[in-house]
Amino acid sequence: MIDLSRLPERVSIYEVSPRDGLQNEKVTVSTPDKIRLIDALAQAGLQRIEITSFVSPKWIPQLADADELADHIKAPPGVTFSALCPNPKGLARAQATGLEEIAVFLSSSETHNKKNINKTIDETLLEFEETVPPARAAGMRVRGYVSTVWGCPYEGDVDVERAHAIAMRLIELGCYQISLGDTIGCGTPRQTARILERMLKDIPASKIAMHMHDTRGTALANILVGLGIGIRDFDASVGGLGGCPYAPGAAGNMATEDLVYMLHGMGIETGIDLEKLVWAGKAAESIVGRPLPGKVHQSGVRSLRA
Amino acid sequence: MIDLSRLPERVSIYEVSPRDGLQNEKVTVSTPDKIRLIDALAQAGLQRIEITSFVSPKWIPQLADADELADHIKAPPGVTFSALCPNPKGLARAQATGLEEIAVFLSSSETHNKKNINKTIDETLLEFEETVPPARAAGMRVRGYVSTVWGCPYEGDVDVERAHAIAMRLIELGCYQISLGDTIGCGTPRQTARILERMLKDIPASKIAMHMHDTRGTALANILVGLGIGIRDFDASVGGLGGCPYAPGAAGNMATEDLVYMLHGMGIETGIDLEKLVWAGKAAESIVGRPLPGKVHQSGVRSLRA
Repeated sequence: MIDLSRLPERVSIYEVSPRDGLQNEKVTVSTPDKIRLIDALAQAGLQRIEITSFVSPKWIPQLADADELADHIKAPPGVTFSALCPNPKGLARAQATGLEEIAVFLSSSETHNKKNINKTIDETLLEFEETVPPARAAGMRVRGYVSTVWGCPYEGDVDVERAHAIAMRLIELGCYQISLGDTIGCGTPRQTARILERMLKDIPASKIAMHMHDTRGTALANILVGLGIGIRDFDASVGGLGGCPYAPGAAGNMATEDLVYMLHGMGIETGIDLEKLVWAGKAAESIVGRPLPGKVHQSGVRSLRA
Repeated sequence: MIDLSRLPERVSIYEVSPRDGLQNEKVTVSTPDKIRLIDALAQAGLQRIEITSFVSPKWIPQLADADELADHIKAPPGVTFSALCPNPKGLARAQATGLEEIAVFLSSSETHNKKNINKTIDETLLEFEETVPPARAAGMRVRGYVSTVWGCPYEGDVDVERAHAIAMRLIELGCYQISLGDTIGCGTPRQTARILERMLKDIPASKIAMHMHDTRGTALANILVGLGIGIRDFDASVGGLGGCPYAPGAAGNMATEDLVYMLHGMGIETGIDLEKLVWAGKAAESIVGRPLPGKVHQSGVRSLRA
């Protein structure tokens, strides 16, 4: 049941383009260009930005400059920078740069997790046991991603109970929020309601975020369902930068500007300046040297009405 | 209020690509290629297809073959072909080809109507008085389009009372259904609810259709609102073919395959074979010789769940 007269007054957007976006680009973007993108995002009013990933450069050469990048840029007041850290080694690197927030990532589908991380889900969770509590003990905030919740490119449907159990485990370990991912962008509204309602039986809405891909055009419809159910945290990537290289056919993170356009049009506050965000989308396009799929940075903003 | 457990079990899709799509393409498609597209659409299960427009070839050279096209193809059993007819002259041409349904078109914004049709709204309605009742008297069904209901590229916000008054007038004249258009694709969900709720105060849901553009990515979210309010008729264009040449920045009709993907994923029947529709999208791309923005014909269909 979505009561359009009773939606959140304000939502928080977690920007993933510098990490999730750039790690999936064929080109390796220079460190100064990454800094340019992150600056543009912060200037547009994004307060939570995932700037890089402390994985082995062997796995993701596009983010091989993680230490240098995180060393060079410091979050302006009111802004939190975070980075993906798959294991204690990554955590040590993140700590060395002074980051205050990290994220851990796994899949709710065994096959996808294996292809993506080269570990079973249980092995991945064991590694998180050595990563999340130490990070918490060091005063850092930790966010958890659970991907393929709406469907897996290898296994098809994913049991929501499996995704739920993983989310619960990540919360027990100390994650402040779980970002549920529609990695291949296959979700539809009734399914979204079913998944979120199951999660919210045991998990408060403030601890759940939605990470939708717009592969089949349904991302905003699914987010509307999430808003109606009480979700107030949404991941997005400016211009729709990124996807998932291990998910055949996957393309298009939810474009931040399209999400913000809809939210502002509904009178929901984000703290973001949409015109500046559109310019960040243009910057992202010039940095990766290809047109990006987000729509509002192409169409432009028009007068917005609540 | 959208109750996802109480949505229509079946909706009807009105396909506009051969008319609204092709009239906005720079290339003029050959008559055999148009027939190929229309055949592919009918074979995919579309039962209502707007095949052409009986306007002066001076205005829309892309559809100069309207008489020849409508003469050559006949709707298979269970399928209705219709055509846009702006005036009595167009009606006479449509009648000569044996078409059983026509459509009339105007804007709810004076400036847009003037730029699009070169007439005031009142002049346009006067012409419809000489078109719609005669068509009805001849046993034809008539559908009415009201465009720019969500916003005008020249005037900005459009008063819903103005759009409502025009819709009422078209129903009085004998239109069986009014298709409300978000011509520049600026609509957001709360606005959509407000517009539709106003319309449904005086007009039964069966007489209202939504014609959404996906210019800013919000089309499916708006359609979800419409489904929740009881709308069961939606216009779409395979591949997202078309837009509006007189609306700066406008691009992208709602892609039929993206709409059908969402509906089927929600367990809502359309009578359409999505795999065949994806192929019709590929055919549309090859016919116009450019990639089309619809997403599902690019990503492919995956297993669908209700």
